[in-house]
Amino acid sequence: MDATDVIRTKRDGHRLRDDQIDWVVDAYTRGEVAEEQMAALAMAIFLRGMDHAEIVRWTQAMIDSGETMSFTDLGKPTTDKHSTGGVGDKITLPLAPLVASFGVAVPQLSGRGLGHTGGTLDKLEAIPGWRADVTNEQLIQILRDVGAVICAAGAGLAPADKKLYALRDITSTVDSIPLIASSIMSKKIAEGTSALTLDVKVGSGAFMKDLETARELASTMVCLGRDAGVATVAFLTDMSSPLGRCVGNALEVRESVEVLAGGGPRDVIELTCVLARQMLALVGQPDADVEAALRDGRAMDVWRRMIAAQGGDPDGPLPVAAHTQEVVADRGGVLTRLDALAVGVASWRLGAGRARRQDPVQLAAGIEIHVEPGERVQAGQRLLTLHTDTPERFEGARESLDGGIDVDPDAADRTGARESVFLERIE
Amino acid sequence: MDATDVIRTKRDGHRLRDDQIDWVVDAYTRGEVAEEQMAALAMAIFLRGMDHAEIVRWTQAMIDSGETMSFTDLGKPTTDKHSTGGVGDKITLPLAPLVASFGVAVPQLSGRGLGHTGGTLDKLEAIPGWRADVTNEQLIQILRDVGAVICAAGAGLAPADKKLYALRDITSTVDSIPLIASSIMSKKIAEGTSALTLDVKVGSGAFMKDLETARELASTMVCLGRDAGVATVAFLTDMSSPLGRCVGNALEVRESVEVLAGGGPRDVIELTCVLARQMLALVGQPDADVEAALRDGRAMDVWRRMIAAQGGDPDGPLPVAAHTQEVVADRGGVLTRLDALAVGVASWRLGAGRARRQDPVQLAAGIEIHVEPGERVQAGQRLLTLHTDTPERFEGARESLDGGIDVDPDAADRTGARESVFLERIE
Repeated sequence: MDATDVIRTKRDGHRLRDDQIDWVVDAYTRGEVAEEQMAALAMAIFLRGMDHAEIVRWTQAMIDSGETMSFTDLGKPTTDKHSTGGVGDKITLPLAPLVASFGVAVPQLSGRGLGHTGGTLDKLEAIPGWRADVTNEQLIQILRDVGAVICAAGAGLAPADKKLYALRDITSTVDSIPLIASSIMSKKIAEGTSALTLDVKVGSGAFMKDLETARELASTMVCLGRDAGVATVAFLTDMSSPLGRCVGNALEVRESVEVLAGGGPRDVIELTCVLARQMLALVGQPDADVEAALRDGRAMDVWRRMIAAQGGDPDGPLPVAAHTQEVVADRGGVLTRLDALAVGVASWRLGAGRARRQDPVQLAAGIEIHVEPGERVQAGQRLLTLHTDTPERFEGARESLDGGIDVDPDAADRTGARESVFLERIE
Repeated sequence: MDATDVIRTKRDGHRLRDDQIDWVVDAYTRGEVAEEQMAALAMAIFLRGMDHAEIVRWTQAMIDSGETMSFTDLGKPTTDKHSTGGVGDKITLPLAPLVASFGVAVPQLSGRGLGHTGGTLDKLEAIPGWRADVTNEQLIQILRDVGAVICAAGAGLAPADKKLYALRDITSTVDSIPLIASSIMSKKIAEGTSALTLDVKVGSGAFMKDLETARELASTMVCLGRDAGVATVAFLTDMSSPLGRCVGNALEVRESVEVLAGGGPRDVIELTCVLARQMLALVGQPDADVEAALRDGRAMDVWRRMIAAQGGDPDGPLPVAAHTQEVVADRGGVLTRLDALAVGVASWRLGAGRARRQDPVQLAAGIEIHVEPGERVQAGQRLLTLHTDTPERFEGARESLDGGIDVDPDAADRTGARESVFLERIE
């Protein structure tokens, strides 16, 4: 087989045959198909699409490129969750220990942030001593003893996806539904979970900007999960404004601990509890009282043991930024819009995110949000606090916020308020 | 500027800005934009297209990536020709000396064959002692002394195009009108000719399979030439069946010498003479009697001096293949079709062409054609003779011919005959 034939097939708008998909994914993993050839194919897939059968085969080929795990020996069901990523999305942190407190296993193989959305591993590394890397044996042991683990995915799972993801990142071929769906689902299926709850973000701060494409992505992933024998449900949730009141690594850890302590912002609590109930329902506990587990400290107890199992000190001090600046309302009125993308990019520019894969992040950088959309403010009232260790970054962050904050003197109270983050459920 | 932004612009169907084009071509030439990024951009250009202003700018950026030549000191006008390539297209060989015999300079910076179309340099290398590489100083000297030169393009002209052409070849992004037009015209404009005649092939054996896309390519190139101050005319010519009666390197040299000696196949003579008249008309000799120059040996004289100037022996023996096989008519009737692509691929498989840039070619391999479309044949009559040094290649060549030869017992005489190779003229 020849890479140019495979590229030409998709370039000309035809279906890729099963043997073409199997060959090109395998040959790419082995380095026989060159990066520039896969780049051309990825762009052809981006612009021409793939039908459902092609996506299923592509996903399976990526799974087959590496090892697969199995949790069948654990003696308890596993239930996993994936979010497509958004601004202030720290839900994994309170969610995994909360669900595990009901006696089920929650393996969360996570990634690092790139661009304006944060990475779960970057957030947890704000905790003194905590390490993202665990061996497969340690992973199983922590799931057995504690129930929840959030760690870096090993190099052995879907190596084709790892190569392809890095390539897509530099060739503007990320936002393709077939490529996103197969990337996410190949890792989750290879990981061997029995149930999967998907949180597909919609809005300015998400990959999917509109409901229709988010719905298509969610349906594609639910079908892929079902075809692979993984009980899969997806929620579409709003990402037009940030989730919670903190954006940035250490800041989001702090907010997550507030939720585990029974407090925290309403939207973070809502999303955590609805996702927890769904994850538990998929493994036979439809009536679990997840609010009680947050209130009475059961979830916090699992959190502390989960952090300690990876070397972290749950009581250790979180890093604090060397410099802060406030963003204030330039007039009185109702805050009708706080744009997720603007806040995400500002936080990224403050140092919370990375421009290139190898860059470090500032653990303490980020943004505190003092006012939510729908609330009334006075002229000069504090809206945001910007945090960074490198004050020359304030200017770029403020530029990103330009046009992302609307205060309307004539708007009625609650204009722009978000009553719920949930938009749709797809199964 | 960032490569991913440039890729995204074209991916999403927008115009590339001038500064984006200038930057990406320059940065790619310098290695700052990676091959995989240019591959994604090339596929996006392939599928989204470029408008005329974008193509003009892209062409200029490729010219600016290297040096330019000038023939203004020669003391005579230069007139150049380019063919988009076809099966049996040896026209450059008789054409360049024929035109030069009228006292004008004909610089033919040529390439090697890849795929089923042969390369002019590969053909001339069948002549004992002939060398493709000349310095810029030698090039000028030969143009001054002899008038015609056919040689390899130096590395300094449009280096961006050289890199991009090699990349397009392995990423199935060759057959794109903006990319073909800018590739051809950047080299011709950088070379510094004052007039250019284009032979755009149409049909199964050509890049352009139909008249409409060939017309679009020709118009694009004529406009690019005109905008750059090069008097440019294009002909669309038929490539549904091979040109002449010989396909393959040494075989085509032999046929070219027949034409220079006043003989040769009708279609090769016709194409050579019409192109020669056009090339001369563009530099002020509209009434040149080119047929006379073939008849009376003036063109042959320039040919002999041109070959000798690059170390070749015009009387040296051409290589002869070690093995031949005949392809015969399986029934009697009229040969209604002899498909150019089938013959081109068969010749390529016999060893006349290369699969990869670094492969050698067999100088003696190729195909002799004994019967042209429209002629009547008996069952068992010889249609083709296959030539190769490696007889294990006969089988693959015969497979390529399957379905490429039609003999119809019921057809009228002259069915399928080609009255002229000329289809249209565009200026």
